[in-house]
Amino acid sequence: MAAIGIDLGGTKVQGVLLDGSEVRRDAKLPTPHGGVAAVVDAIADCVKALGGVPKGGGIGIGVPGAVEADTGEVRRAPNLVGFEERVPLARLVAKATGAGQVRLDNDVNLATLAEHRLGAARHEDEVLGVFVGTGVGGGFVLGGNMRRGVTGAAGELGHMVIEIEGGRRCGCGLAGHVEAYAGRASIEREARRRHAEGEPTLLVELAGDGHMKSSVVARALAAGDAMTIELLDEAVRALGAGIASAVTLLDLSLVVVGGGLPEKLGPLFVGRIEEAVRSRLFLASSPVRVVPAELGDLGGAIGAAQLVT
Amino acid sequence: MAAIGIDLGGTKVQGVLLDGSEVRRDAKLPTPHGGVAAVVDAIADCVKALGGVPKGGGIGIGVPGAVEADTGEVRRAPNLVGFEERVPLARLVAKATGAGQVRLDNDVNLATLAEHRLGAARHEDEVLGVFVGTGVGGGFVLGGNMRRGVTGAAGELGHMVIEIEGGRRCGCGLAGHVEAYAGRASIEREARRRHAEGEPTLLVELAGDGHMKSSVVARALAAGDAMTIELLDEAVRALGAGIASAVTLLDLSLVVVGGGLPEKLGPLFVGRIEEAVRSRLFLASSPVRVVPAELGDLGGAIGAAQLVT
Repeated sequence: MAAIGIDLGGTKVQGVLLDGSEVRRDAKLPTPHGGVAAVVDAIADCVKALGGVPKGGGIGIGVPGAVEADTGEVRRAPNLVGFEERVPLARLVAKATGAGQVRLDNDVNLATLAEHRLGAARHEDEVLGVFVGTGVGGGFVLGGNMRRGVTGAAGELGHMVIEIEGGRRCGCGLAGHVEAYAGRASIEREARRRHAEGEPTLLVELAGDGHMKSSVVARALAAGDAMTIELLDEAVRALGAGIASAVTLLDLSLVVVGGGLPEKLGPLFVGRIEEAVRSRLFLASSPVRVVPAELGDLGGAIGAAQLVT
Repeated sequence: MAAIGIDLGGTKVQGVLLDGSEVRRDAKLPTPHGGVAAVVDAIADCVKALGGVPKGGGIGIGVPGAVEADTGEVRRAPNLVGFEERVPLARLVAKATGAGQVRLDNDVNLATLAEHRLGAARHEDEVLGVFVGTGVGGGFVLGGNMRRGVTGAAGELGHMVIEIEGGRRCGCGLAGHVEAYAGRASIEREARRRHAEGEPTLLVELAGDGHMKSSVVARALAAGDAMTIELLDEAVRALGAGIASAVTLLDLSLVVVGGGLPEKLGPLFVGRIEEAVRSRLFLASSPVRVVPAELGDLGGAIGAAQLVT
């Protein structure tokens, strides 16, 4: 049965019309920053661009934050204006679109679910999905089921401690976390700080005053920029330590790495992460593999559609 | 139905006769270091001391190493002489005792299972058990089920990375792991190293040439020994970081801390670990609690008995 999946991101609303395992259509809009009503309108516009709610089908939505899957409420999504507090998003979208069924989940959980059902983990019963974009998110399928945890916040691999003292400050306010070294935002923060202290880097030259996108990091790396090489070495090392700790703790067989940064940097980057993981594994004989995600940009939206199919 | 549980440790064979939730008898023997046959004999002696295999009942055995629960084989238990390679322990014990059913599992998994069924986690669906003895082991019950992992080695919290560079050497050969700071053996290693360099400490004075037992650490702490205070501060910090990472990754509600060191140091030590965990949690509102184990020394054997009840 066909269904619509929406990946509601901080910068874009990405939608797909999924029919079985086929993406029939996709559509993308910028995320409005005018509050909840504007976001609901943008989702409704995206649904229209996909041909409307399919007969008998529903809408699944991935949200970059904490959600309550049962009630269809967003608890908190700090990167979306208007979502600093609880929002009954499923109800609002149902009303705006006429859809009979609207379900929510965390965006990274859904990207992991999509890789599990249709992507790099489709032959596996278990997978840890690690997504490196602005920050570092993670999601688990364990024994065939999504792991949500006691408050629905499971998978925060980006906030595992890998440096117990004097570690780099993380976006969350604490220090020494994986994300403090491996997220695009922390790479940008560090590059701008060092640049402001007089150290030259292509990262700042290419980005100017705009966002330092993943594509900028890829171009600076391709040009051999010294600071980029160094910061990416640190990112690989941090991801290696965090993923190795997760594998050691849970004895996992497969890790899928996706998100903007690995996509722009390509499979070699994921290969380097796998090496870094392997060098830190307690169980040297672990069969774990670390592989690139297969569904790319559309993964989150595909996973969202699978919530209602 | 009554059953026998054996906790086969590196220094002692601890047995219980469990009837429902009641320990009817318990018995303890030193672990022989003469190879597999001697260990099997010691287990059989322990079973005799408990009154023999109960009619219709079986024997469960906890092993300090990697086991194959299905086949009843020990894959590797480096702290037991003769168990460096695969041993069909269940079959050997069945033959030696005449028991109809003999099952194995990892000792830390079983101690966690016992806390889940009868101890500090008996009202919970999920628990992370952390046991601090010679090393640091861990076990999970997730969604009511023991988490074993793809090779049966899940729960190695002691080998999570908490110091990404220049961390203290761990017993496993890698560096910067939780166990490198928090296990009794690593505390002993560090104390003897510093003592050899001329730094006085009650730890070495009290232990002499013998094992630096957990009770020695407790006595040195009670006497206000400066190095003991420092090393235990580091242990608390390391356990806090590792457990916080596990809680953040899995969104857990309960952590039970047991083992020789927490038992000798008492609930204040576990309280300090809880504080250290809380200070490092990404989700400040997490409902997680960190509490002392309730079943003490007999926990592993009780969990083992539950394998066959």
